[in-house]
Amino acid sequence: MTASRLLDEIAGVGRDRARGGYSRHAFDKVEGELRTWFAERAGRLGLDVDTDRNGNLWAWWGTPGPDAVVTGSHLDSVPGGGAFDGPLGVVSALDAVESLQGKGFVPAKPFAVVVFVEEEGGRFGVPCLGSRLMTGSLDADKARGLRDPNGVTLAEAAVQAGFDPERFGADPDALARIGRFVELHVEQGRGLIDLGAPVAVGSTVIAHGRWRFSFSGQGNHAGATLIGDRHDPMLPAAAMVAAARRLAIATGDGRATVGRLVPVPGGTNAIASTVDLWLDARVPSGDRTRTLVGEITEAAKEAARAEGCLVAVTEESYSDTVTFDSGLRDELNARLGGVPELPTGAGHDAAILAAHVPAAMLYVRNPTGVSHSPEEFAEVDDVDHGGRALADVLEHLST
Amino acid sequence: MTASRLLDEIAGVGRDRARGGYSRHAFDKVEGELRTWFAERAGRLGLDVDTDRNGNLWAWWGTPGPDAVVTGSHLDSVPGGGAFDGPLGVVSALDAVESLQGKGFVPAKPFAVVVFVEEEGGRFGVPCLGSRLMTGSLDADKARGLRDPNGVTLAEAAVQAGFDPERFGADPDALARIGRFVELHVEQGRGLIDLGAPVAVGSTVIAHGRWRFSFSGQGNHAGATLIGDRHDPMLPAAAMVAAARRLAIATGDGRATVGRLVPVPGGTNAIASTVDLWLDARVPSGDRTRTLVGEITEAAKEAARAEGCLVAVTEESYSDTVTFDSGLRDELNARLGGVPELPTGAGHDAAILAAHVPAAMLYVRNPTGVSHSPEEFAEVDDVDHGGRALADVLEHLST
Repeated sequence: MTASRLLDEIAGVGRDRARGGYSRHAFDKVEGELRTWFAERAGRLGLDVDTDRNGNLWAWWGTPGPDAVVTGSHLDSVPGGGAFDGPLGVVSALDAVESLQGKGFVPAKPFAVVVFVEEEGGRFGVPCLGSRLMTGSLDADKARGLRDPNGVTLAEAAVQAGFDPERFGADPDALARIGRFVELHVEQGRGLIDLGAPVAVGSTVIAHGRWRFSFSGQGNHAGATLIGDRHDPMLPAAAMVAAARRLAIATGDGRATVGRLVPVPGGTNAIASTVDLWLDARVPSGDRTRTLVGEITEAAKEAARAEGCLVAVTEESYSDTVTFDSGLRDELNARLGGVPELPTGAGHDAAILAAHVPAAMLYVRNPTGVSHSPEEFAEVDDVDHGGRALADVLEHLST
Repeated sequence: MTASRLLDEIAGVGRDRARGGYSRHAFDKVEGELRTWFAERAGRLGLDVDTDRNGNLWAWWGTPGPDAVVTGSHLDSVPGGGAFDGPLGVVSALDAVESLQGKGFVPAKPFAVVVFVEEEGGRFGVPCLGSRLMTGSLDADKARGLRDPNGVTLAEAAVQAGFDPERFGADPDALARIGRFVELHVEQGRGLIDLGAPVAVGSTVIAHGRWRFSFSGQGNHAGATLIGDRHDPMLPAAAMVAAARRLAIATGDGRATVGRLVPVPGGTNAIASTVDLWLDARVPSGDRTRTLVGEITEAAKEAARAEGCLVAVTEESYSDTVTFDSGLRDELNARLGGVPELPTGAGHDAAILAAHVPAAMLYVRNPTGVSHSPEEFAEVDDVDHGGRALADVLEHLST
């Protein structure tokens, strides 16, 4: 089974009719189907599938052990996401195992394919949930209390899906087994188009985070309330969206995005009482992501004051700039005969692991650069090219 | 049973835990409970309860017939609305009937209490749904196709609640029976506070409407997409919110509100592909509501162009300025011994009926002016005062 064929197998799972694309989230029914599919597919390759205490799936080729070569990615999506972000790394890993087996290769080192839980944070708000829990960078109590948009806690969702949330938390044993980690991922920008190359090795991941801004005012009647009597939180929320764009441009290379915004009660003829919005901010150069967020926060506070509203800001997650292990990058690059190195503005589980073990990434060309959208795409030839590159690299590392 | 006591009886029905207050919408389970409660309460007063072809409830005191004196309001709410907007007019009507019966009064004319469907448009977007259907000002086919936020059509919801949507439409027989209509309602502004009076007679309802603005751009990754490559519909949506405020102020007395805004897909780390928002606009002076909407539309188009996005605008409902019947107003005012007359920025079923029959309104003081919010309130004394005023007026009209 090529990676493309494997993607086809799950093409019908988790389609989002309202948004388009896919909505596959931690501990929902669709994710359960994908888990079952992965276990079945890995089982056919003779891999032993295990679930760690945080719900991450591990498929071992041979006996689990230390200094393992580990590859994989995630199967969850953003709400209304594409088919490649996450699954491409998982199917390419299975494809690589099959092709290595096909030529009689047997790894000299322990070898595993991993599927991390909720990399996108699409349901519970914290990206790289599974890898953050495993590495201990996310507190288990905080994680258990995270809520989805319907108010369901992560702990409740886990129980419903048959997992024991009391076991969530740092998993030094699982982490200690990883010798080196390689994640293949569809590129989420236009870097490889510009370079005219199908595959690149990852260099850095830009510092990034998510901040929740809760604007509160006075809910009231949209027709009967004079403009001068209003404390409408939608006004400072809108001003903040504009300020985030303006201040991001001023950084030179920073990005600031508001893609999620929820007015409450959300009635057409009612002035909102609160507006919650989420800011995603990333600044490549310097250590300026939090500086940008500070500037945007000041603008939000000023706009809230002007409307007689309040704003509360919560940092929901933050990750510093990550530079992938230079030794491992050099090895990959040598094995692949010299491919471009590429920074990325997107976060990944590999970047969480990079603080603990040598980790690296391979990117596969995205012919439009579009990601986190139903239109996300990769050409079959590039997908196959990526699968072969991953097999090459894994063979080298596990020999 | 006083009006206050009757309100207490339904205080637990339809509470919205997420938003606070109440969410009671057309053909949902909660509205079904309120219908049952109303029929039971009216039955205890010896009224005969009937449902018309559009789902509006009629409770007749004596034999139905032409030239009837009709009073009533609605039981639905905005999402997360207050306890008074709608129900106060219904319970005051029941209270008035009971007190008139208590003193042995028998109406000389046909007499009915009516409950109109979905006055707020909180589920299907069109306010005064039941009265608009009855009077024929809303096309039945168009109504049947209206969708709630989950994509359920009005026709589907009606069937599920046990109604036949094929019967929806103009109901000249029901309309022809109404001789005069009086609706009591909590005030939704600060007019009666300023006047120091508990009750007023309604003079006019400001022209108002709802417009849907659909901004479309290019969904993409929030971290990997450079600012210069973006077509983010959240930007023109935010610019429009600011422009709506600015242009409303420029009219002198106009109101423009965006209380509902939905980005799709709505992920934190995804640039939205579309943002839908709803504009509620009302300008008291001149005939300038649509002029204001035209100006806001131009601003929205300009902002969309600047971001490489598109915007489509749909008028979901529009009502011209309504002046209540001056003869009926004078009669009410004489009967009540001279009370203030008050214009309102809020729409009502009485204003829909006013195009067809003499209609009038009584407003009950709202001590904060807040409405369409869980904090909406009226003092028990004022509620009782309103109930007595309504009984007085109905006795006079039906003698």
